[in-house]
Amino acid sequence: MKKTFYTPIEVGDYKITDNFWKAKLDIVKDKMIPYQWEALNDRIADAAPSHCIHNFKIAAGMEEGAFAGCVFQDSDLAKWLEAVGYILLYKKDEELETIADSVIDIIEKAQQPDGYLDTYYIINGLDKRWTNLTDHHELYCAGHMIEAGIAYYNGTGKEKLLEVVKRLADCIDGTFGPEEGKIHAYPGHEIVEMALVRLYETTGQRRYLKLAQYFIDERGKEPLYFKEEIEKNGRSFYWERSLFQYQYYQAGKPVREQKTAEGHAVRAVYLYSGMASVAKETGDETLTAAVKELWENVTRRQMYITGAIGSSDYGEAFTFDYDLPNDEIYGETCASVGLIFWARRMLEMELKGEYADVIERALYNGCLSGMSQDGTRFFYVNPLEVNPEACRKDQRKSHVAVERQKWFGCACCPPNLARLIASLGNYACAFSENTMAVHLYIGGEIKTPFGNTRLIVDSNFPWEGKVKIKVIGGGGNFNLALRIPGWARGYTVTLNGEPTEGSCREGYLHLRRDWKDEDELTLEFPMRVEKNYANPNVKSDLGRVALTRGPLVYCLEEIDNGKGLTKIGIKEHAGYQLAADGMEAGEVDIITQGTIADDSGWGESLYRFDGPPNLNEIMLKFVPYYLWNNRGTGEMIVWIKDC
Amino acid sequence: MKKTFYTPIEVGDYKITDNFWKAKLDIVKDKMIPYQWEALNDRIADAAPSHCIHNFKIAAGMEEGAFAGCVFQDSDLAKWLEAVGYILLYKKDEELETIADSVIDIIEKAQQPDGYLDTYYIINGLDKRWTNLTDHHELYCAGHMIEAGIAYYNGTGKEKLLEVVKRLADCIDGTFGPEEGKIHAYPGHEIVEMALVRLYETTGQRRYLKLAQYFIDERGKEPLYFKEEIEKNGRSFYWERSLFQYQYYQAGKPVREQKTAEGHAVRAVYLYSGMASVAKETGDETLTAAVKELWENVTRRQMYITGAIGSSDYGEAFTFDYDLPNDEIYGETCASVGLIFWARRMLEMELKGEYADVIERALYNGCLSGMSQDGTRFFYVNPLEVNPEACRKDQRKSHVAVERQKWFGCACCPPNLARLIASLGNYACAFSENTMAVHLYIGGEIKTPFGNTRLIVDSNFPWEGKVKIKVIGGGGNFNLALRIPGWARGYTVTLNGEPTEGSCREGYLHLRRDWKDEDELTLEFPMRVEKNYANPNVKSDLGRVALTRGPLVYCLEEIDNGKGLTKIGIKEHAGYQLAADGMEAGEVDIITQGTIADDSGWGESLYRFDGPPNLNEIMLKFVPYYLWNNRGTGEMIVWIKDC
Repeated sequence: MKKTFYTPIEVGDYKITDNFWKAKLDIVKDKMIPYQWEALNDRIADAAPSHCIHNFKIAAGMEEGAFAGCVFQDSDLAKWLEAVGYILLYKKDEELETIADSVIDIIEKAQQPDGYLDTYYIINGLDKRWTNLTDHHELYCAGHMIEAGIAYYNGTGKEKLLEVVKRLADCIDGTFGPEEGKIHAYPGHEIVEMALVRLYETTGQRRYLKLAQYFIDERGKEPLYFKEEIEKNGRSFYWERSLFQYQYYQAGKPVREQKTAEGHAVRAVYLYSGMASVAKETGDETLTAAVKELWENVTRRQMYITGAIGSSDYGEAFTFDYDLPNDEIYGETCASVGLIFWARRMLEMELKGEYADVIERALYNGCLSGMSQDGTRFFYVNPLEVNPEACRKDQRKSHVAVERQKWFGCACCPPNLARLIASLGNYACAFSENTMAVHLYIGGEIKTPFGNTRLIVDSNFPWEGKVKIKVIGGGGNFNLALRIPGWARGYTVTLNGEPTEGSCREGYLHLRRDWKDEDELTLEFPMRVEKNYANPNVKSDLGRVALTRGPLVYCLEEIDNGKGLTKIGIKEHAGYQLAADGMEAGEVDIITQGTIADDSGWGESLYRFDGPPNLNEIMLKFVPYYLWNNRGTGEMIVWIKDC
Repeated sequence: MKKTFYTPIEVGDYKITDNFWKAKLDIVKDKMIPYQWEALNDRIADAAPSHCIHNFKIAAGMEEGAFAGCVFQDSDLAKWLEAVGYILLYKKDEELETIADSVIDIIEKAQQPDGYLDTYYIINGLDKRWTNLTDHHELYCAGHMIEAGIAYYNGTGKEKLLEVVKRLADCIDGTFGPEEGKIHAYPGHEIVEMALVRLYETTGQRRYLKLAQYFIDERGKEPLYFKEEIEKNGRSFYWERSLFQYQYYQAGKPVREQKTAEGHAVRAVYLYSGMASVAKETGDETLTAAVKELWENVTRRQMYITGAIGSSDYGEAFTFDYDLPNDEIYGETCASVGLIFWARRMLEMELKGEYADVIERALYNGCLSGMSQDGTRFFYVNPLEVNPEACRKDQRKSHVAVERQKWFGCACCPPNLARLIASLGNYACAFSENTMAVHLYIGGEIKTPFGNTRLIVDSNFPWEGKVKIKVIGGGGNFNLALRIPGWARGYTVTLNGEPTEGSCREGYLHLRRDWKDEDELTLEFPMRVEKNYANPNVKSDLGRVALTRGPLVYCLEEIDNGKGLTKIGIKEHAGYQLAADGMEAGEVDIITQGTIADDSGWGESLYRFDGPPNLNEIMLKFVPYYLWNNRGTGEMIVWIKDC
């Protein structure tokens, strides 16, 4: 049987119009992209300079100077250009396009005759290129630049950057591979794998897919390339004393032997995304099985309820099954973004609700929490429990910023958020030969591949569970696959006001019929406040609950509930009131009854044996997690005591 | 009013005979001291060499070679000699004494004409001495050597080492002080302060007390000596990026301005011990107030129920109030030993049960846990919760050894335990002009300062709460102050079989009378199994309980209760059975009913909202915490769920 794949629709084929996401897209377009452009040009006062554009100008022979910034600084420009490419599909902007075109000219000038493109080595000496694959980021920057080339081509139809990245990919293809005389290696920081598959999908050139496949198959083979490279260079191995060794780079063993997610979380999910892409395009069953096993490991044993991943600051890494500390978490914004990349690729292979559930979980919680409401400040680390005193006094929590920052020396997260939001349509629905699958209920207009048929989605997600989908532009015989979110206890569906039925498989309601113009489906997913429990092996959450409503995780903040949030518990049979007095349009807050352990009557001693502390009754106000820390610095908690 | 001080009785004045402690003393004498002697001489197979004796021989001109080992390696020999001095009071041993005498000869030979004694600088160049007070340990080694000199003099009456350390102290006194031409500094690692006070008490030479006082008063004054020294030496500051900065050394501000315990825990409690000693001897009220405030901070907000201190591996340090993670703890054995040093010195100033309670808590739990039952293996770190998988896979817990080790490159803990146990009498009772105070009920014979009166203590602590105290050798009019342990809910006391009464003040029962020969007191402290709760601000323990019985903290081990100990809870109204089938003579284990959260029926997902996990009933077996890990590697937990 031929396998069915689900191709994400193009970004431009989903015109997003709903209040929630339109506001975010406007922030990306009006705030983040201009702000990041200023940052790339070192024009943000009291923020670390990026040096990025300056590096490109030096590499292009337009300015003098030395390379500055991180070795992967080029990727910031690439991510910015990718976001620009997508955002131009949301709203045309000639001025922005002119700026982007002019910077693409600089990139083209910086590119070497053989296609090589990395300003660090162009400036510091090309003779040294490809000699530090372990810790330098030439292939990583290349991966981002390839994504930028494709996005900008999609967004504008202009081929210049696409041609640049094809030459770059060809240069890499000429350098790496199994053939004699080529380097038998793979990147220290993954991403080029998934980018190369996209380049294959865009250009039809199979060599790009083969190169991605090579990078994945070669990874972690004995003798370890990174080990030999480090010895050859006479460098010291940064992770010498670490527990993960080469698994920091997911390079300690072949990818098919990696049963649990290990090492640097962003690298890991970028690799797994590449594995999924290659598995889909090649039909490699062992690779498919490997990436599914990793998926189960991450989503069933190493993922926070917010979709955050990476339990430890040390190595910004995964640790082990069920280790999910809420306060010492790393939970990098980029890692949640990467998890979404990966989930979408799993969804391309298999239409299963669990993949879309993870996209939704990470998107509305662990990703959106990375930016302030106004889009000018960002979190790198996304904790589920914060006590500012602890962050000031305990080195183990000193990586947790107690408020969002303007910019970062290593500014990977803000542009990663920008490119994700700008390309949201990519994650919201997909099609196969005869199916249109809707993953996320984002209000807007979707172009289907079936004639001129379009779908108008009317939704007030994440605040309300009611969705209307109207067929316009014709209709036709196709299957509409509508995701039943994992958080919904049941659903109702009507067609033109009449009850209708479909078949429910793997988290999707399939409705196959001759769709007529003006057909209107109404879906309703009851959005209840739910008390979530974690698997009892998660010791950080045992005896605790987290409230969710629809796709949103909720939290308590000090500004609403006072200090000492860890002492708060929820009452067993408390009801919930919804309140809409929040800081964001449509926002739904949750009011309920709780208790707080009383330390005032505790007395002098640290320990006592005359019974547990008294519990005083209090009213609790929960707000959506992604909105925390928009009203000043203070404590925050997601998992609270269940009693 | 003249202040009353309580002078600890001399080690030799408490002949310990009870089963529990006699066994430990025999281990120190027959196992630890010989083993450590082998270690000092680099004769332990597959253990890191100490180099210690070799360094002394080189410094004495008896052997050739370079200094090796840690900069504070000399202190290992000093601690060994101190333990030998005390243990010879427990049991004479000519062979051991001969070995000790011969090594003292070497030390004397190594000492420089001006009294200087530190093999690192004697070997590497005396011109550099006193130039790295921040991170080198000349004054620390001197402090330990002074303690050794006093102990060996007490133990044998031999003055050679005492003379050596007096010359050493005089050399230090000639080097440091407020006078022009002297160095205005203080040690990076404290201990010399309390040693100098002891030397003052032993010799009557007030200059030693003044020097101790100087080190304490000078500490942390602006401009910071360590800062200037580091700048002068052009070295980098190791704690540059740390949150505690110079408070790592308790040297960021004057000691009287230090309101919370900060930095390296062992250094801290050694300093506080010195502060208490100086405060007592000088009557300095601001110093007394300062050390009391620190005492309250540590014992009411930064101490584990086992008497462990030092919440963080980073800097082996204190963190902040109520931060007491059970699995990421440092809890160094030496820190609990130091806490006992400090508590005893507080008790010298004030007869208050809370000080003795801390001695008992740390002694029977956080200290004894540092050694294996047979006295040949040691813990450096004493966690209250261990999952071996976490220690192998999570860098944050990689400092927690999952089993006791033979020896350490930095072997401070084993000899520190040896010297503590060997001098136990020092901590067990004290006297003032008209009072004999019994702090710990250790079976044996106590020589009082009242004529020839002695007390025979008959006790089966920590297993039974009944104690008999018999007066022999005369009697007389004095006050007997008997500690009522903090864990006892009441007590009964009879004199010669008849109920008697005294006055109870600050945790001591005072019985003043004309004691007659053969008078016999019987005290009974009911030893109940108690469910302990922590102050609700201790988030690691909230919703959890720890079982204690008498002075002992109990724990669950995997070998008795299976894997997944964090999932275990105690039932609300469970009764307790006592069992005496343990590994140690007299051991009392606790059997009770508990629950375990069921993960088998949990299903596939990490999070769910259809109720908490099921609880299955199980029988639980608790064993004394200090005995954990004597039956193989596995999980262990002290604080378990309360439900």
